Amino acid sequence: MQRDLLNQPLRGIIPPVATLLQDDTRLDTEGMSKLLAHLMEGGVQGLFILGTTGECTNLSYDLRRELIQLTCREVNQRLPVLVGVTDTSFHESLRLAGVARDAGADAVVAAPPYYFGLGEREILAYFRKLADELPLPLYLYNMPSHTKTMLSQANVVELSQHPNILGLKDSSGNAPYFNAMVHAFRNRPDFTLLVGPEEMLASAVLMGGHGGVSGGANMFPKVYVDLYQAAASGNLAEMARLQDMVMEVSAELYSLGSYGSSFLKGLKAGLHFLGLGNGFLAAPLTAFEGEQLREIREKLPQLAAYRYCTNDT
Amino acid sequence: MQRDLLNQPLRGIIPPVATLLQDDTRLDTEGMSKLLAHLMEGGVQGLFILGTTGECTNLSYDLRRELIQLTCREVNQRLPVLVGVTDTSFHESLRLAGVARDAGADAVVAAPPYYFGLGEREILAYFRKLADELPLPLYLYNMPSHTKTMLSQANVVELSQHPNILGLKDSSGNAPYFNAMVHAFRNRPDFTLLVGPEEMLASAVLMGGHGGVSGGANMFPKVYVDLYQAAASGNLAEMARLQDMVMEVSAELYSLGSYGSSFLKGLKAGLHFLGLGNGFLAAPLTAFEGEQLREIREKLPQLAAYRYCTNDT
Amino acid sequence: MQRDLLNQPLRGIIPPVATLLQDDTRLDTEGMSKLLAHLMEGGVQGLFILGTTGECTNLSYDLRRELIQLTCREVNQRLPVLVGVTDTSFHESLRLAGVARDAGADAVVAAPPYYFGLGEREILAYFRKLADELPLPLYLYNMPSHTKTMLSQANVVELSQHPNILGLKDSSGNAPYFNAMVHAFRNRPDFTLLVGPEEMLASAVLMGGHGGVSGGANMFPKVYVDLYQAAASGNLAEMARLQDMVMEVSAELYSLGSYGSSFLKGLKAGLHFLGLGNGFLAAPLTAFEGEQLREIREKLPQLAAYRYCTNDT
Amino acid sequence: MQRDLLNQPLRGIIPPVATLLQDDTRLDTEGMSKLLAHLMEGGVQGLFILGTTGECTNLSYDLRRELIQLTCREVNQRLPVLVGVTDTSFHESLRLAGVARDAGADAVVAAPPYYFGLGEREILAYFRKLADELPLPLYLYNMPSHTKTMLSQANVVELSQHPNILGLKDSSGNAPYFNAMVHAFRNRPDFTLLVGPEEMLASAVLMGGHGGVSGGANMFPKVYVDLYQAAASGNLAEMARLQDMVMEVSAELYSLGSYGSSFLKGLKAGLHFLGLGNGFLAAPLTAFEGEQLREIREKLPQLAAYRYCTNDT
Repeated sequence: MQRDLLNQPLRGIIPPVATLLQDDTRLDTEGMSKLLAHLMEGGVQGLFILGTTGECTNLSYDLRRELIQLTCREVNQRLPVLVGVTDTSFHESLRLAGVARDAGADAVVAAPPYYFGLGEREILAYFRKLADELPLPLYLYNMPSHTKTMLSQANVVELSQHPNILGLKDSSGNAPYFNAMVHAFRNRPDFTLLVGPEEMLASAVLMGGHGGVSGGANMFPKVYVDLYQAAASGNLAEMARLQDMVMEVSAELYSLGSYGSSFLKGLKAGLHFLGLGNGFLAAPLTAFEGEQLREIREKLPQLAAYRYCTNDT
Repeated sequence: MQRDLLNQPLRGIIPPVATLLQDDTRLDTEGMSKLLAHLMEGGVQGLFILGTTGECTNLSYDLRRELIQLTCREVNQRLPVLVGVTDTSFHESLRLAGVARDAGADAVVAAPPYYFGLGEREILAYFRKLADELPLPLYLYNMPSHTKTMLSQANVVELSQHPNILGLKDSSGNAPYFNAMVHAFRNRPDFTLLVGPEEMLASAVLMGGHGGVSGGANMFPKVYVDLYQAAASGNLAEMARLQDMVMEVSAELYSLGSYGSSFLKGLKAGLHFLGLGNGFLAAPLTAFEGEQLREIREKLPQLAAYRYCTNDT
Repeated sequence: MQRDLLNQPLRGIIPPVATLLQDDTRLDTEGMSKLLAHLMEGGVQGLFILGTTGECTNLSYDLRRELIQLTCREVNQRLPVLVGVTDTSFHESLRLAGVARDAGADAVVAAPPYYFGLGEREILAYFRKLADELPLPLYLYNMPSHTKTMLSQANVVELSQHPNILGLKDSSGNAPYFNAMVHAFRNRPDFTLLVGPEEMLASAVLMGGHGGVSGGANMFPKVYVDLYQAAASGNLAEMARLQDMVMEVSAELYSLGSYGSSFLKGLKAGLHFLGLGNGFLAAPLTAFEGEQLREIREKLPQLAAYRYCTNDT
Repeated sequence: MQRDLLNQPLRGIIPPVATLLQDDTRLDTEGMSKLLAHLMEGGVQGLFILGTTGECTNLSYDLRRELIQLTCREVNQRLPVLVGVTDTSFHESLRLAGVARDAGADAVVAAPPYYFGLGEREILAYFRKLADELPLPLYLYNMPSHTKTMLSQANVVELSQHPNILGLKDSSGNAPYFNAMVHAFRNRPDFTLLVGPEEMLASAVLMGGHGGVSGGANMFPKVYVDLYQAAASGNLAEMARLQDMVMEVSAELYSLGSYGSSFLKGLKAGLHFLGLGNGFLAAPLTAFEGEQLREIREKLPQLAAYRYCTNDT
């Protein structure tokens, strides 16, 4: 299937799959199966596990391996599976990629290392070495809020020449940066440009982006899939209607409290009230409790996105 | 005319007018007249002087006053004139606003103070006090790259209740933030939302923004005015054609060297080769010289935006 | 007197003099006279007005001019007077320096411009141009928390060759940086190295620094003057006793609330309760009120530094 | 031995031991034995493995385990061994701490997680949970340049109440912060305060700090051990002589090129030319080559620190 990503480059919604846990060390395997089925039924075009939304860095390596195997088994080649291998240790990235390849995943995704800050050339050298040694194709991952490193346009353009690097997932939220990438790669339909923040999915696709890695699609996959379609086909009226739903989800669920991880706390609580998982977050993050949990339970069924999915599905 | 901005809220392209200088202390009055005429002929919907592109903070106060008076005299009520009064000193902001009011300007624009960092509540109190005491209506200005302060959505929503605050110019480049503003103000057409970076003008307008403060409009006003129209009217094909031009300007002119102010250096050199000014930048910034200057001279006439304006106008 | 700073380089405590105000636009001239007398009686070796502690950037230019003239008149050549001319506008820095020279001040102090970020070489060029054109000798001012620019060691070493640049005031709080400067200038006793944060005054002097610009000296000049002497003469027991007082002042007065400017709010409240000024801060900063004000009133007379000054003076 | 750290709190030089590698996946076990012997002969008071200088985050977990076991075996209870367990995954920190306990290490050291940013209270909760579950006592590790999180004084004071938390290693380089800690813990000799940057070792100890985690001690342990003694005993003349050596090492070896990791590249090259290891750095970092390597080879034998160790040892 890996060949496909070269000849049939990724397009559409590739959700960053949430990792459902029983507790700090045990995967909620039943929940995960249900979530993966929910996503596939929702029409998504691929799956990205072990991203930031998947709490990648906070999971033990045993859990990461188990999750990769479970996901590939459940998906069973029906969709491309991308696996996050971002790590401070080059060797652990390779090792996890090996697990992914053995399990039948299609590609890996890696952000720059995030403890030691690297300079421009060191980043270039890092990704070249990684792409050379990886057993699967690689998507670059720009995630400056967490890695404190912005992948420069020059480096991305340079790395796009590598036969094993297939695209970029940009989670910077920086529209001039994303649009500059669209412009730079306007003659490279084989190099896939995906946008992270769902609040800019529609506009990124309208400007020429190829799809989104939208966290909210874990809850309401159909909304994001349809929003992508509306934007990709230039249906502005439909796009506006769905964009309102997406912004409402963002406004109501992702900004309670004043946490750096409010998005993730809100998402996991939302999934819980949709019957997907118990809401647990791996340490050092913690789940919402009390008032904020109640707030999400009350708001959820009133969301237009909720009604859109309930009525249509 | 000030009443108009309440009942006829700003829409369209309001360029951040470049400040053309003879040297560090003298305005290029002839150049400025020519530039203002060029902008008005280009069809822009308003003018914003003494913004970041206008090198606001780097000009002496005498120069700022002279520029306000010259601009208002030349424009002569044909377009709304907005005046940047961002300052570390509250009193100097007020004083400059007084000059603007006396000269016949329509509104002022202010970013948060940028030497002492202020907390959330202090920013709220600052803008309330400013709006209370200003002799002209106020547009908020979010410019975190320079002020190191991000105007929070909560503060903007709160401040939008003030009768003397008419809108927000957001130069963060952060699309999720801008789209959250569009969503929060979806029932407030009187509260104008303008976007700074021209690379995201089209997408911001497609998502519901009201216009842009596009630096490149100093050179090619017609391109940005037409791009705004295409986006506002949902003409996606025309939008794509013009967006390409805008991205080419950005890629070719704004990123030479590795300066924080590459945009400004490129813009001033571009204006110079269009017959607008001598290219001088106020200290501590300095103009491009040698290779970079040659590069801009060669690239300029080959830009699609250049040809679009030359043929059409 | 300006010659003296070359042949008799600054040593000791040069307080960043607080600016006492009646309100946003009027200087508390009586309070200022009293404060200046208090400082001179306290034995300080120089005075630095219009620094960060002096709320430089927040004052109107009229106020700045008035303060320069008042200070020079009151001091009447008894001590070197340094004047902060940090500004985003090169021309306004020069203009203020002209006022300082005319009033009889001895030197000026300038941090890098703080709105547009400058690169390494631009900073070098800026300070060279400034030192060339200034009518008074210049001390460099490293203040990264407010300017967002760190003066590199390479630039400081380079600039120290300029005949009109006499030293560095480092307020970064970064001990490895300060000690690297001490090492780099170990054979340059003419190049004065002053440290900003009073919490590291003693250690900076022990390691070879020449003195401190200690904000707390506004309240308790004798404590800081004696601490400097203890450190400079290697009297470790006396140093430890006084260091405890300085840390107590810092712990009790400078960290109430969670403001970026807690230090300044606490200092002005402390001065007020010592009979120096009404506690007012220029907008956009605001004075402590209610609980925090009460807390300072109660703590002040219990401070060891307070008793040290009361008994001894 | 763990009890000892409570009743005999750590004092002196506890070097952050460099990790000598054959290549990305193999430990240089012979080199490590030699380095550990070199350090113990140099008189250090403890050893800290898997710190930032030990390239902790860049090593595979297999390598980390092997290094812990090798170190504990070689040291054989002659000195306290501290093991860095900083990780983004809570579970992996615990697991590594288990390996450390089983191998006979005395304590662990942990900085805050560094991918997801945590708020004040989340950090407090994180360290409490960690200290509760760890099988060994814990030293807090403040390393904001790499974790992007500053441990607040309030949190450190709060956490110092936990019976399993024995001290703080502060690598911020921020002297006011360190001195505030000294002041806050002036009556808590059981709570050990160690300073990271060797350039401020002497001043930190003079002000009341308990020792240093000095990277340069890998090369020249005797210099740092003697500098600590000079500072701790108030021998200022001896301190000044040794401080000069330390600053020379820093100036000549740690700042070649413009890398975030220049210190580590210089240290590993220096060790290599002292016969300790081949200079290899784990990916994504890379060793110096060419000119910079030659520069270090030439400078090394001319350093006063080199001669001090060669003559004396």
